[in-house]
Amino acid sequence: MKRAQRACFITQTLTEDPNRDYPLAFFAEKLGCAKSSVSEDLQIVRQSVEAAGLGYVETTAGARGGVRYVPYISKEVASPQLVKYGEMLAQPDRMIGSGFIYTTDLMSDPGFVTLSARVFARRFAAVEADMVVTVETKGIGVAMMTARLLNMPLVIIRREAKVSDGSTISINYFSGSADRIQKMSLSKRAIKPGSRAIIIDDFMRGGGSVKGMQDMLAEFDSKTVGVGVVIVAGKDEQKKIGSYFPIFLYNDAGAACRVSVNPELVV
Amino acid sequence: MKRAQRACFITQTLTEDPNRDYPLAFFAEKLGCAKSSVSEDLQIVRQSVEAAGLGYVETTAGARGGVRYVPYISKEVASPQLVKYGEMLAQPDRMIGSGFIYTTDLMSDPGFVTLSARVFARRFAAVEADMVVTVETKGIGVAMMTARLLNMPLVIIRREAKVSDGSTISINYFSGSADRIQKMSLSKRAIKPGSRAIIIDDFMRGGGSVKGMQDMLAEFDSKTVGVGVVIVAGKDEQKKIGSYFPIFLYNDAGAACRVSVNPELVV
Repeated sequence: MKRAQRACFITQTLTEDPNRDYPLAFFAEKLGCAKSSVSEDLQIVRQSVEAAGLGYVETTAGARGGVRYVPYISKEVASPQLVKYGEMLAQPDRMIGSGFIYTTDLMSDPGFVTLSARVFARRFAAVEADMVVTVETKGIGVAMMTARLLNMPLVIIRREAKVSDGSTISINYFSGSADRIQKMSLSKRAIKPGSRAIIIDDFMRGGGSVKGMQDMLAEFDSKTVGVGVVIVAGKDEQKKIGSYFPIFLYNDAGAACRVSVNPELVV
Repeated sequence: MKRAQRACFITQTLTEDPNRDYPLAFFAEKLGCAKSSVSEDLQIVRQSVEAAGLGYVETTAGARGGVRYVPYISKEVASPQLVKYGEMLAQPDRMIGSGFIYTTDLMSDPGFVTLSARVFARRFAAVEADMVVTVETKGIGVAMMTARLLNMPLVIIRREAKVSDGSTISINYFSGSADRIQKMSLSKRAIKPGSRAIIIDDFMRGGGSVKGMQDMLAEFDSKTVGVGVVIVAGKDEQKKIGSYFPIFLYNDAGAACRVSVNPELVV
């Protein structure tokens, strides 16, 4: 293979497998060339990946030296897409009443899900988490894609325990949206004590279910190191939890419902 | 940008966005070069992608001519990974009893999910589907990733309707695993009549829930054009449905439970 082909091969391998370390020796063997050649190929890869604005290539030096692709969507690339989806979310026929928006289609649309996951992966790149946690159902798509980009396992908390979960731990919490006590369950073998988790959910109003997930993590002697929510409705002071990161804001006070993109994310 | 960098840029863009058509003019504009140069760059991309064994680059000719990346895992690349996961699934501590296997961790592990999705994306590349359908919860990860690779929306059928689904259609079906009548619901606006769907699920024994999904699709005047199931337990003749494509087979007859990879998939 010539240099350009080798560089493409490396680009594809890294892009398909975000946040995974590849030793230079891996590519040297695959491509039948010296590690020094791989290093030179990587210069090309690095520059082109930077130009695309979807991530960057990180190199670690030393004997165990390797290379990884870190997804990182630039504000310039994200902004117009987020604005477009914000307008879709604000369409009047999505307003179901009682402050709910129909988002089922978007929450499992590959384009929307991948974009949201990229925004979360960028935001939580440095929190040193070792897992992503969500509660079924609608946030699973975004949570799964975030886990893929960060190369971490996803843990899905169930509403009701299933036989195949084995023994479980359960939490009861008050859901403002459902206006009643709800339950969530998780298999005892799902989380190792001392884990650090990023919580991802599709929608939050009062924060009851995120609070429930935090309580669940505490039951496993584990810690919440980040909370990302695709759409957050209402005002900060009504929330049961402290810090969280929304992509879209939904203001349903007054007659006109309004969806906007988190101002931090737009140019 | 030089040729090698341009080729890397094209490789990354296509890999990040599987099964989406990119007109040559898109790259010509982005890279500030002639379409004929992009065509030449694509030769390099095509050869390197073929060597990686994870997909191929497809070009369509004519005025609206474009290029797309079609994920297609080769048997040689898939086989050793499938065998490794098959051994993990067969570990005695995964056997929960009553013929159930603990798979919760794997069904949301990015590596396992991506591999399974690649196998399904390859299998169903030519069925001309326009959506992927699953029923909550454990299959959502694989279904979402399959939808991403095929660039199709995912439709998630719920066990119970939620307020935010608006009006829904419900199906009752007999689940052999749960040994009782179960229900599934879907928002009336989730599927357009005349759609063609690939059904993806994590586990099947009798086929009741896949049959339920087929019945649901029929309610929307839509058609099942493929069924992919990650793990299928028991024998063919016990199934309520006709054609399906398993990745792993689970033989739980007799004392020793045994998991094997679908022989079609291994070298």
